[in-house]
Amino acid sequence: MDNRREKWGYKGIAGVIPNFDKTVRGYLNLITSHMDHSQIDQKPMIPLGHGDPSMFSCFRTSTVVEDAVVGSLRSGMFNGYANTSGIPSAKRAVADFLSRDLPNPLSPDDIYITSGCNHAIKILVSVLSCPGANILLPAPGYPYYEVNCESTGIEVRHYNLQPEKGWEVDLASVEAQSDENTVAIVLINPGNPCGTVFSYDHLLKIAKIANKLGIFVISDEVYHGLAFRSKPFVPMGVFASIVPVLTLGSISKRWLVPGWRLGWIAVNDPNRVIRETKMSDTILKYMSTSPQPATFIQAAVSDIIEKTEEDFFYKTILTLRESADICYALIQEIDCIICPHNPEGSMFAMVKLDFSRLADISDDVDFCCKLAKEESVVILPGTAVGLSNWLRITFAIDLPSLEDGLVKLRNFCNRHK
Amino acid sequence: MDNRREKWGYKGIAGVIPNFDKTVRGYLNLITSHMDHSQIDQKPMIPLGHGDPSMFSCFRTSTVVEDAVVGSLRSGMFNGYANTSGIPSAKRAVADFLSRDLPNPLSPDDIYITSGCNHAIKILVSVLSCPGANILLPAPGYPYYEVNCESTGIEVRHYNLQPEKGWEVDLASVEAQSDENTVAIVLINPGNPCGTVFSYDHLLKIAKIANKLGIFVISDEVYHGLAFRSKPFVPMGVFASIVPVLTLGSISKRWLVPGWRLGWIAVNDPNRVIRETKMSDTILKYMSTSPQPATFIQAAVSDIIEKTEEDFFYKTILTLRESADICYALIQEIDCIICPHNPEGSMFAMVKLDFSRLADISDDVDFCCKLAKEESVVILPGTAVGLSNWLRITFAIDLPSLEDGLVKLRNFCNRHK
Ligand SMILES: Cc1ncc(COP(=O)(O)O)c(C=O)c1O
Ligand SMILES: Cc1ncc(COP(=O)(O)O)c(C=O)c1O
Repeated sequence: MDNRREKWGYKGIAGVIPNFDKTVRGYLNLITSHMDHSQIDQKPMIPLGHGDPSMFSCFRTSTVVEDAVVGSLRSGMFNGYANTSGIPSAKRAVADFLSRDLPNPLSPDDIYITSGCNHAIKILVSVLSCPGANILLPAPGYPYYEVNCESTGIEVRHYNLQPEKGWEVDLASVEAQSDENTVAIVLINPGNPCGTVFSYDHLLKIAKIANKLGIFVISDEVYHGLAFRSKPFVPMGVFASIVPVLTLGSISKRWLVPGWRLGWIAVNDPNRVIRETKMSDTILKYMSTSPQPATFIQAAVSDIIEKTEEDFFYKTILTLRESADICYALIQEIDCIICPHNPEGSMFAMVKLDFSRLADISDDVDFCCKLAKEESVVILPGTAVGLSNWLRITFAIDLPSLEDGLVKLRNFCNRHK
Repeated sequence: MDNRREKWGYKGIAGVIPNFDKTVRGYLNLITSHMDHSQIDQKPMIPLGHGDPSMFSCFRTSTVVEDAVVGSLRSGMFNGYANTSGIPSAKRAVADFLSRDLPNPLSPDDIYITSGCNHAIKILVSVLSCPGANILLPAPGYPYYEVNCESTGIEVRHYNLQPEKGWEVDLASVEAQSDENTVAIVLINPGNPCGTVFSYDHLLKIAKIANKLGIFVISDEVYHGLAFRSKPFVPMGVFASIVPVLTLGSISKRWLVPGWRLGWIAVNDPNRVIRETKMSDTILKYMSTSPQPATFIQAAVSDIIEKTEEDFFYKTILTLRESADICYALIQEIDCIICPHNPEGSMFAMVKLDFSRLADISDDVDFCCKLAKEESVVILPGTAVGLSNWLRITFAIDLPSLEDGLVKLRNFCNRHK
């Protein structure tokens, strides 16, 4: 007891702390730190980097959705703690909702209610991180996967999405990257950051490869319902008899309420592989000490799913399509930026910087920092999503701001030619 | 690639999975599994094991509290993602609320909004789990601490609460258990499971010992406001100039809305120890990929704190005191059960089983299983909270059920004498 250390030393955490700097928010913080207050007073910030359009009035959720929550709140019946995997009515509602498009219907027992899709990602990455394991993630992709893999220790291997083929999965790179320690492949469909919607045939090919490799498919379908062109969204669960599929989703994007923090994991497992390997038990145990979404929001899910008017979705789709078209058209007018693929879904377009036409810009991060400083336009550098010298542009914003932002982007590019 | 393992093997998680069986809920599941459905039809279940009274009409939250949430929801301004440490208005409201009773007022920067107090516990246990570290937990205590310590690897050391001294901390055992690798001591005040409220003088002694030992104090004040006798509740933050204090709290118990999942960590650190050791940075980084409470619930916190009528708290306090008194009086009439201390706060009484007067019962878990089976009365065995052969009885339930449950407990004891 004599040799006591200095008072109140803090030696730091035993595990790996999540690397906030590498999240989307971390990069956006870096970019916006290049603007100063006096600048913002003159030129208000135009956010083309976010994934949260809920602050724009054209992307306000439906009153029906609010009513559902007010109803469950006012009932006074949902002030208490919820079961670990979510309250039964929410699980049933999600199961029925997803089953609409599935040959093998889901039961409430196949659903785990999570605190948003991010929490679903965190749970699955943790549960899959057995010693020596690796996981296949898309490049470009959604960095929250990488950050969580880093803290749980599962090795990340990237497969490519191919810009010249409408951002389809490079199937050869999937096979090349996998080995006997590969546990799963993550798909994001509709895609962030590429705005792709995968076709039935393409998904079937992926299912067959995953079957051959003996790896699970994690299908991040958080943008479910946000496919706005002729190619329909096909849930990966359709192929669950070929390969066990863990579908991730949430009400964040389709219902435009990302701050409500309600998501799910759906276990598409007609061959009972996920049950028999005890992975579903581990998910439940992991969740038993995890944060949960508010019980009254869970209680509103069935009304949210059943009562939202088709018109609401239709309007969102139309708005997104119009925005995507304008975004694509305006980008064509910018010399040093190339958009290889007009987005078909989600809220984003990936565009490539043509450095042969740019002076005094060293890379995509430098581009975005200078753009923010000079024009108050915030765009996410491709580095954040795993593809340097590209940019991810969000078009889920009101049209006047989108147009204003893209004009400023053009002016910036012209100045730096 | 030839030597491919069997398809879809799942080797399990790399870290330690939380041991759900050892949580309060895990034990309650075990106990209730001894009741069958036909039994419950005849004798409805009387829950005296829970920590969630929100389903009883006498413990319904105030309309003002509901109004606050409806207001922020209907504004449409809080559908989006929140900042990592919580939205500014919630942080300010919690800081102001806690500062009412503190000599060193808190600023919004000292507050981290979490998904309930459990999440606050999880964050702090993780952040403190540096290699080789140990932490002092009370016995009896709240098992969520132990379960989280087990999964993060920090060593648990128990100090004693003393039933014969009104469950005060055994200060000698605190000193005896600590060494140079001890990082913190956890206090629960008002107490779960003992129903104690620590006096100013007792807390001062603890602060001085923690100062001498150079360890942080984590003060779990989730039952803040639920001290219902003459001894006032004193927040540990009062002694923050002696020892850095991390105060944990939530709206769960005081406002009777545990399912809303909104809590906090408050850093009482006038000497800037927690900031300078970078522990606060680590908390923020850890939280950057953590689940969060719904933004519109965060936005309601300032109204919840400022507008709830004093009458609401007064009524809760009166109800709890009356229940505690009835509970204590009825237990005096039961031969084989001793309650050493009439509860002064929270929702629980700890009672001791006198095995010299009990036949055919092997221990507290056996007692609770048989009681559930024979009488449909559910009580938490002391083993769950770290004190075998004791029971934790919840009195936060409507009076008729409480009386009914205790009469059945007496009948059970008489039968097993
Ligand atoms: C691909 C992807 N997955 C998950 C999420 C997180 O969704 P949630 O708000 O439901 O946590 C996002 C959010 O941007 C996303 O783009
Ligand atoms: C001592 C103690 N801490 C924390 C909690 C969890 O509170 P919350 O509902 O805010 O997560 C409880 C709940 O019973 C408790 O008894």
